[in-house]
Amino acid sequence: MNIDGAKSALVQVGAELYHRGWVPATSGNFSVRLESGDLAITASGKHKGRLQPEDILQVDGNGEPRGSAPARPSAETALHVQLYRREPEVQAVLHTHSVGATVASNRTSATLDFEGLEILKAFTGIASHRSAISIPIFPNDQDMAALSAAVDDHMARHGTGVAYLIKGHGLYTWGQTMADCQRHLEALEYLFEYDRLSRTLGTAEP
Amino acid sequence: MNIDGAKSALVQVGAELYHRGWVPATSGNFSVRLESGDLAITASGKHKGRLQPEDILQVDGNGEPRGSAPARPSAETALHVQLYRREPEVQAVLHTHSVGATVASNRTSATLDFEGLEILKAFTGIASHRSAISIPIFPNDQDMAALSAAVDDHMARHGTGVAYLIKGHGLYTWGQTMADCQRHLEALEYLFEYDRLSRTLGTAEP
Amino acid sequence: MNIDGAKSALVQVGAELYHRGWVPATSGNFSVRLESGDLAITASGKHKGRLQPEDILQVDGNGEPRGSAPARPSAETALHVQLYRREPEVQAVLHTHSVGATVASNRTSATLDFEGLEILKAFTGIASHRSAISIPIFPNDQDMAALSAAVDDHMARHGTGVAYLIKGHGLYTWGQTMADCQRHLEALEYLFEYDRLSRTLGTAEP
Amino acid sequence: MNIDGAKSALVQVGAELYHRGWVPATSGNFSVRLESGDLAITASGKHKGRLQPEDILQVDGNGEPRGSAPARPSAETALHVQLYRREPEVQAVLHTHSVGATVASNRTSATLDFEGLEILKAFTGIASHRSAISIPIFPNDQDMAALSAAVDDHMARHGTGVAYLIKGHGLYTWGQTMADCQRHLEALEYLFEYDRLSRTLGTAEP
Repeated sequence: MNIDGAKSALVQVGAELYHRGWVPATSGNFSVRLESGDLAITASGKHKGRLQPEDILQVDGNGEPRGSAPARPSAETALHVQLYRREPEVQAVLHTHSVGATVASNRTSATLDFEGLEILKAFTGIASHRSAISIPIFPNDQDMAALSAAVDDHMARHGTGVAYLIKGHGLYTWGQTMADCQRHLEALEYLFEYDRLSRTLGTAEP
Repeated sequence: MNIDGAKSALVQVGAELYHRGWVPATSGNFSVRLESGDLAITASGKHKGRLQPEDILQVDGNGEPRGSAPARPSAETALHVQLYRREPEVQAVLHTHSVGATVASNRTSATLDFEGLEILKAFTGIASHRSAISIPIFPNDQDMAALSAAVDDHMARHGTGVAYLIKGHGLYTWGQTMADCQRHLEALEYLFEYDRLSRTLGTAEP
Repeated sequence: MNIDGAKSALVQVGAELYHRGWVPATSGNFSVRLESGDLAITASGKHKGRLQPEDILQVDGNGEPRGSAPARPSAETALHVQLYRREPEVQAVLHTHSVGATVASNRTSATLDFEGLEILKAFTGIASHRSAISIPIFPNDQDMAALSAAVDDHMARHGTGVAYLIKGHGLYTWGQTMADCQRHLEALEYLFEYDRLSRTLGTAEP
Repeated sequence: MNIDGAKSALVQVGAELYHRGWVPATSGNFSVRLESGDLAITASGKHKGRLQPEDILQVDGNGEPRGSAPARPSAETALHVQLYRREPEVQAVLHTHSVGATVASNRTSATLDFEGLEILKAFTGIASHRSAISIPIFPNDQDMAALSAAVDDHMARHGTGVAYLIKGHGLYTWGQTMADCQRHLEALEYLFEYDRLSRTLGTAEP
């Protein structure tokens, strides 16, 4: 994907996710890996449902802006860089901020684990509901170097997984294509709502 | 209905159900019976809100693909075939995957029973709220031959009914037209939400 | 309003209310009073989000169809007739079927009472939140003559009010214009949701 | 901003907020400060999703209508005037009426306090989740002079803050631009839903 294709893709993703309510109040940020190895990432502080092509910035593999755009790349660029560095197959990263993900991030301080659900087959590589995923939850931190190091350390020990939550903040997920990444996001939002409704109703397993 | 009409109908159904949130993350599959006796069914793994005509495949009465399309028919084709074989009047089958249906599928291991509600008149053949429907819940299984045999065995003993749930997975419903089938689906989603909200509020009858 | 204006108005109302989820699965029916004194009312069993002009029928003041249309007027025509007869100022009636209204209809067997809320000013004639409305709940009945007599008897004793619920079924509301009627409907759906969420959260007054 | 720009902006805001369900049943009112120092404010009793340019009225700095428009300015104009007078930087005020805000307004009689959440960065001037906001809740009153005096008195003692609730009524928020104001509104609705879901689920801190 080149920068023009990336701009077009991220503008459209923003419109879709905003209308789902998953990136309210300028929250969230999105990126794709370019064919050059650089990244395209959303600028900081923009309305994600009304992105303009100039709100998508090109940064190098360390997250440093190319050229001298007036906008700054997302403050969380380091978290995107961590994923692209660790996983050469990752081509797209979505960070979202739904109420459901934030509520889920406070349900435990360990990991959110899901198993036995057909929707798990939405994750690349899973072919049966007799599977499990484990979503780690990291404490929030405005120090992006520290937070990305914590994430990287966890992945070094436990594997990359499919997603992570930042407590009181939101969700990161990724994929080998933007379509994979959006499918993962839909499955995760489904799981968070399933978890919440089951627990409120009292039908969740302990 | 011929294959072109079926393609058009299933593409439109997919867009509608996706926007309702009932087939997230490529989940769900849909079919209609063709005038030739073959079936038209969605291909495996497609985004149901963005189906293309080539994502609708023609299969024979045993679920075997006609011709050599690049896409595979849904992994759950056998469950559609079971319904068309058992009920000559069935012309359309919808399998959906809403959070509400999945939460409902875990509320009991027996059947979900509804009675005394005006919405029951949405089901073909029901003319009064003084009626009841019983929705069986089957354990999930990736072995489609085993799962379709379990469904068929249940229907042989208890009648075909209007719908069934697969635990932790989703919903199957059917009708004599696609409009009937979509009306059943809307009524079922209504019933699942009614059940969940009434139980959370504490106004449900025991 | 003449019959052509009525057809156009009811088709548009149907599309709006269907997209709100308030008339699922062909449920609900709508009417307006014509300048001739006849009524225009939706035909039985139609998809309310896709009404066609021919789905709106003209009936006389007793609910008897004019001419020989192929479609039947709504089975609940008698309930509309009761309102137009009792209240000469009523020009529009909406019967809806949301999950929220149905859940509300089961919360008590007496009346649903609301007071002290600013939204009450949405009802014609109410100018302060220091007001109250009382919504009676009638047992459901497929005998429309019996049900309309029960409604009329209640109104003779307690006044016409702004709306009523039928248990396990849905909501009737009315107004001096269709805009008034839709405003009342929005306010009622707000009140039902407010009631349910407050009670689930435990902040409702006893 | 001149009056024509203001009309255009408020018509668009109304359509957006109505479709979110935040100004049902003609509730809510919106204003912006004009370059002349006058205000543009919505007329009383209009459908906020279908505002016409003539539904936006120009009033002077005391809230008195300019010219002789047939429509009356919102009954709550005094609450808008209070904010523009107290804070010279405020350029836009939104008053909304969602169910979520109304439920939140009844949760306590003191203030609703939020801290430790990333979404707090949506409020102008907040750069870390290690921040807090406090939303006062005022008793409802149809006497706008009394209510605006109560608000002004609170702000004189505690600072202007970012928003306030009126019990059983709705929300006021403001900003240095309409975009700021809408961002604040989205963040507040997020916080109310987060609070409600967390408390229903039992994961809220005491």
